[in-house]
Parts: sequence; structure tokens; C-alpha cells
Amino acid sequence: MAAFEFIRDLCTPALIIDLDTVKRNAEGMQKRFHKLGVQLRPHMKTHKTLECADIMTGGSQRCIVVSTLAEASFYADNGYDDILYAYPLPFDKVERCAELSERLSLFHVVVDNRLALQELKKRPLKQGKIWNVWMKLDCDNGRAGVPHCDPTALQLAQEISDTSGVELTGIYAHCGNTYACQGEEQIKAVAQETTTIMLQFMEKLKAAGIQGTKSSIGSTPSCSHPVPDMAMLSEVHPGNYIFYDVQQSLIGSCRLEDVAVRVLTRVIGHYPNRNQLLVDCGWTALSHDGGGRLPTGYAVIEGHPELKLLSMTQEHGRVEPISGKLDFKQFPLGSLLTLMPYHACATAMMHPVYFVHSKGKIIDTWKPTRGW
Amino acid sequence: MAAFEFIRDLCTPALIIDLDTVKRNAEGMQKRFHKLGVQLRPHMKTHKTLECADIMTGGSQRCIVVSTLAEASFYADNGYDDILYAYPLPFDKVERCAELSERLSLFHVVVDNRLALQELKKRPLKQGKIWNVWMKLDCDNGRAGVPHCDPTALQLAQEISDTSGVELTGIYAHCGNTYACQGEEQIKAVAQETTTIMLQFMEKLKAAGIQGTKSSIGSTPSCSHPVPDMAMLSEVHPGNYIFYDVQQSLIGSCRLEDVAVRVLTRVIGHYPNRNQLLVDCGWTALSHDGGGRLPTGYAVIEGHPELKLLSMTQEHGRVEPISGKLDFKQFPLGSLLTLMPYHACATAMMHPVYFVHSKGKIIDTWKPTRGW
Repeated sequence: MAAFEFIRDLCTPALIIDLDTVKRNAEGMQKRFHKLGVQLRPHMKTHKTLECADIMTGGSQRCIVVSTLAEASFYADNGYDDILYAYPLPFDKVERCAELSERLSLFHVVVDNRLALQELKKRPLKQGKIWNVWMKLDCDNGRAGVPHCDPTALQLAQEISDTSGVELTGIYAHCGNTYACQGEEQIKAVAQETTTIMLQFMEKLKAAGIQGTKSSIGSTPSCSHPVPDMAMLSEVHPGNYIFYDVQQSLIGSCRLEDVAVRVLTRVIGHYPNRNQLLVDCGWTALSHDGGGRLPTGYAVIEGHPELKLLSMTQEHGRVEPISGKLDFKQFPLGSLLTLMPYHACATAMMHPVYFVHSKGKIIDTWKPTRGW
Repeated sequence: MAAFEFIRDLCTPALIIDLDTVKRNAEGMQKRFHKLGVQLRPHMKTHKTLECADIMTGGSQRCIVVSTLAEASFYADNGYDDILYAYPLPFDKVERCAELSERLSLFHVVVDNRLALQELKKRPLKQGKIWNVWMKLDCDNGRAGVPHCDPTALQLAQEISDTSGVELTGIYAHCGNTYACQGEEQIKAVAQETTTIMLQFMEKLKAAGIQGTKSSIGSTPSCSHPVPDMAMLSEVHPGNYIFYDVQQSLIGSCRLEDVAVRVLTRVIGHYPNRNQLLVDCGWTALSHDGGGRLPTGYAVIEGHPELKLLSMTQEHGRVEPISGKLDFKQFPLGSLLTLMPYHACATAMMHPVYFVHSKGKIIDTWKPTRGW
């Protein structure tokens, strides 16, 4: 740590995290849903670290969502509990899920088809435990989940509820379709639609005699701009809000100043013959997410709206002005640039260590878990 | 290891490597340049593992290229030597380069500007060692390197040669412009152009009284189809050939059957309402490289030319038929698919462990180094 007292001392490329912004984003989300009386169950997929999980759970180390079993095991091994594995139950991982269910107070799995339920029945839990099952409902997002208008949705919920050794703990939906929104109004429209669909489904469950089932929806855009009806949900499960990114600012979930993550890079070459700089950030440090479709290419270069990260190879990034001639004197060899990522989840994924700072002073390093 | 006797036993997603194909690719490249009398200095950037490096160096553990200092240290710590760090000398890493130069018999750095040379002069090596410097020449690739037609190229070479404590070991060029080729003829044309430019530059060096300087060019396409003039080079430095990938098959560097790497994935959902399967391979397991521009989307789905990997989120992949109705019975929940990656370097980068098999039997696991 002593070697890296300030951001400017770091070897590049490096993922840097502004702890003050992370804490502000965490508190904002906590307050928002505390006020609505809805349980926040933050998603860990963006960062996959213990330290950030502590901030997102307010130190409780309870009530989280994960995207992989590697994350589930990592958090379980480090004192976390009440972990929801928000993924259509993979048949190759039933035994690992069973072990986590037997070991933790609360481990939740997600199913969206009858065969998955059969897999759970084939592996009854020991120690008098039961499987905590959320049924995934597709509220017009178009990824996993039983389509909400499909009659099999209610049939599957009923079947889960009727199966011994299994509890229908809740209904889970991801409103990923908010990612196509632009601005608060559109986000709220999708949040309202998803909430309405979910609440209508909860009514159907009650009408079918199924009581006490929880409901959860979530996505960073919808949870950044919740609609009043979301107060009737049991839980929400956003994740990316802890870092935010350029994509979220374009959707309208946040302002650019809420983005807590940067890739620090250095100028490593001047090529006046093609009006370009090279920087030491390739796709190994930023990812290809976003496809370079921003007006500024693959990222926003902080403080330099006139520059574009045009292309990347494994360890090199090509930077050029959006128009006109580059003033190379402004960007000496060895000088630093900071890149705001298009998609923080994808950028964080590329880094084995995150450098955490407050006002430019390095105060911690966080190591994410990886794999599946 | 006992848990994963065969590919079919692996938890997915998983990177699987066909060891027989890796060995065949390695031997092919070794024989090709042995025949030409040119030193093969294989690049480690694609895999970053010890085991694969042993195969590529024929067990010598000498004469390799790396793309990061993390790789350099990893190989140095594990008995490797004669390591060329093929990256424009980053000013924040001069001390780490100096330490490697002092510790190894041969550690090579690359410069393409006078300021980098100044940085080396400021840090003379201890123990009577000198800096082994390769000057990077841009032979119309348009990334790093002094443009070959720029008079400063010869001036910089002269200046490196004249600097005490520093040796001009060689001239280094990457013919990345072969990646725009289609077919052997076009590849050979670029290989010839690069070779001609390099050899002409070597003549200029000799005319300027600079003797004994090595020359090296390389890229997987050009080294897969070398031209006879490449016999006049000292070294070549391809890397991706050890795995190859769909991109290389489209360029014409290899056949699809030479691709040694796959992502193993399982079907996790059936969605007849939108004529789609979900698989458990998202961008965390495949990368976004290639941008989904293949006729089959983000990858080639082995044995299923009728399918397309349409889109990915962090842990999900959407698969649909290129045309017509999907026959879901062919792809039961839990069944396996194998994806041939567009770009093996980018896909390998996403995995903390590679599963190595021979004819479907898992025989080893390789762990890459990461970071910078």
C-alpha cells in the first residue's frame, strides 16, 4: 500500500473506485427504499467484493443477490447469509446449491420451469431444511422467466407451492427492459408496467390460495427512479447503482458525477502522422462493452470531451480528437487520463484488484471473486 | 480433478482446451520456422499459463514475448528467461523493468521514442548489465512504433545504439494489419510488405554503421503463411496460433478444425414464445469481442450452423435459429453446447482456469496470470 499513496502513483491501467461516491450511491438507494418500506436486496454482480457488499448491506452482511455460485460461496465463506442466487437453476449445480441451502440460514434459488422443480425434488435437503424457491416471471423483459401472460406461470407457482420439501418463497422479475429507456419518464413507465404485472400476478396467487409469497423486481434504472406502487413489493434487487456508469447516465438513472469508477491510464505514444495518442488501456482493462458507439468511442475521457477512444487492442487504446488537430503538448508521454466506463460491470470484471480512493488518496484495495 | 473426469462433467460455463490441437499448432509453427532458419519467439498473451508456454517453447522455457509486466514476472518467477516485453516502455514501470533486467540473463524492452530512451538512461542497470532495447518500427500497421518512412526512425535507432548502458538489440514490428486480410494470398502480401520494409530498414542500419541488430516481425496470420523472404529475419513472434479462433479461420490463418479452444455451455431455458434458448454463457465467459458480427452472432456453435448466439448479458446468452422454428427437443434443458470463440485471446482472458482435455477426457487444469 505504501507504494501507492495517491492515484497518480498507481501503475496503469488500474481500476479506481471513489469510495465517497460509492457510499453516497449506497445510502441513496438505502434511503429511497427505506422510505418506501421495501426491503433492499442489493445485487453483488457488479463488484463481487466483500468490502463493497458491506457498504451495500449497511454492514448487516445479510439479504443479497448473486449472479454466480462462485459469488454465493465467496460470500457464504465470509459470513454472509440470506443469499439469493438469481439465476435459472442450472442442473449441473444442484448439489452445490443443496450444500449452500443446508449450510446457510437462508439460501434462495430461482426456477422458471417444471424440470428444474423436478431436479430439486430429486435432491431433498438434509437437516429438515426446505428449498427456498423464487419463481422467475418474465414481465416483458425477454430473458429468463415464465412469460407473465402464459397460463403455465400460475400453474408452475402452484406446483412449487404444492411440492413437499420446497417453499414458494417469492416471485422474482428483472426489468432489464429499462435499459432501452431514455430519461426518468420512460424508466418510470417501465417500472410501473413491471410493478403492475407483478402485483397482478400476486393477486392471482392469492386468488389461487397461495399466501405469504414475496415479490421482487429490480434493475438499476427502475430502482433509481421508483414509482409509488413499488411500495407494495416485498423487495427490490438493483446492483449496478453502486458504481453507475456512462450507460446509466445515458439511460437517465444517474448523473455523470454519480459514476464511482474509472480506468486510470497513461499516454504511452504520440503519433502525429495519424493525429493519435496511444494509451495503456486496451480491452483487457476496459472491455468491449458498448461497442464503441458513444460519440467519444468506448468510454468518456474525463475532462476531455474533445477526445475519442477510437479503438482498442489487447493492451493498447487509440485516442484521437473528435475533430481537428490534436495538441500533443497537452498530453505528454507518461501523463494520466481517466476513462469513465460505458458499463461498470463489464469493466470491473477485467480487473483482479480495485484501487479504492477518497479524494485521490488510495485508502484500500478490494479483490473480487471470479469464475462460476 | 476426480470430479471432472470428462468434459461432460464440467460445471458450465467452462473454457476447454484440446491439448492435441494445441500441440499440433505448436509443432506446426516450430517446424515452419525451423525450416526457414528463423528463431520462433512465441507470444504468451493469448493464454498466460506456464503449461502452454512449455509447449510453445518446446520445453526450453526461453525466448518468449509477453504483453504485460505481470506476465514477465510470472514467467521469470517460474524459471523462464530471455523474455521480451513487447510494449512501448511505460514510464511508470521503468523500475520494475530494471529489476527484471538485473535478475534475468535476458530481459528485453521496447521503445519507440526518445523520451523512453531518456528514462532508461536515468536508471542505469546494476551488476554491469545493460538494457536490451528493441526499437519498435511501424511497418504500416498504425499502432505503436516509429513510422518506417519517418527519418526519426533511423535517428532513434542510431541514438539507442550510441547510448552507453543501452544496447540496440533489435528492430521489432507487429504486422497487425494482416487482421484485415481474407485468404492466404492477401496475408502473404502483407507479410511480404512488412518483411521488405523491415529488411530495407536493416540495410539502412548497416549503411549507418550499426551492425548485429536483430529483426523480428510477427502476427498469427503472417506466421501461419510465411513468405520466403521471412527467412532473412532473425525472429518471429506470433501468439494466437496456439489456440486459433473463428477470426483466424475467417482471415485464412487456419481451418476451423485447428481451433483448440471452446466455451462449454449448457441450455438453461426454453422460450418458445420468442423462439429462443438461453444458455449459461454470457459475456463474462465469452467476451464481447467480434461485436456479434458473425452470421452466427458472437460465436460459432459447434455442430449447429443453423443457430446464432444473438446476444449476451452478464451470465446469459440468447440463442435462436438463423431462420425458421427452433426444435426445442434437440436441445433439452441441461444439455451441452460448445462455442468456438471469435477471438481466443479475449475469451481466454475471462477465465480464471482452463480445463485441458484430450479426446474429451480432462487431463489438466491451467491457471493464467492476470493484471499488469
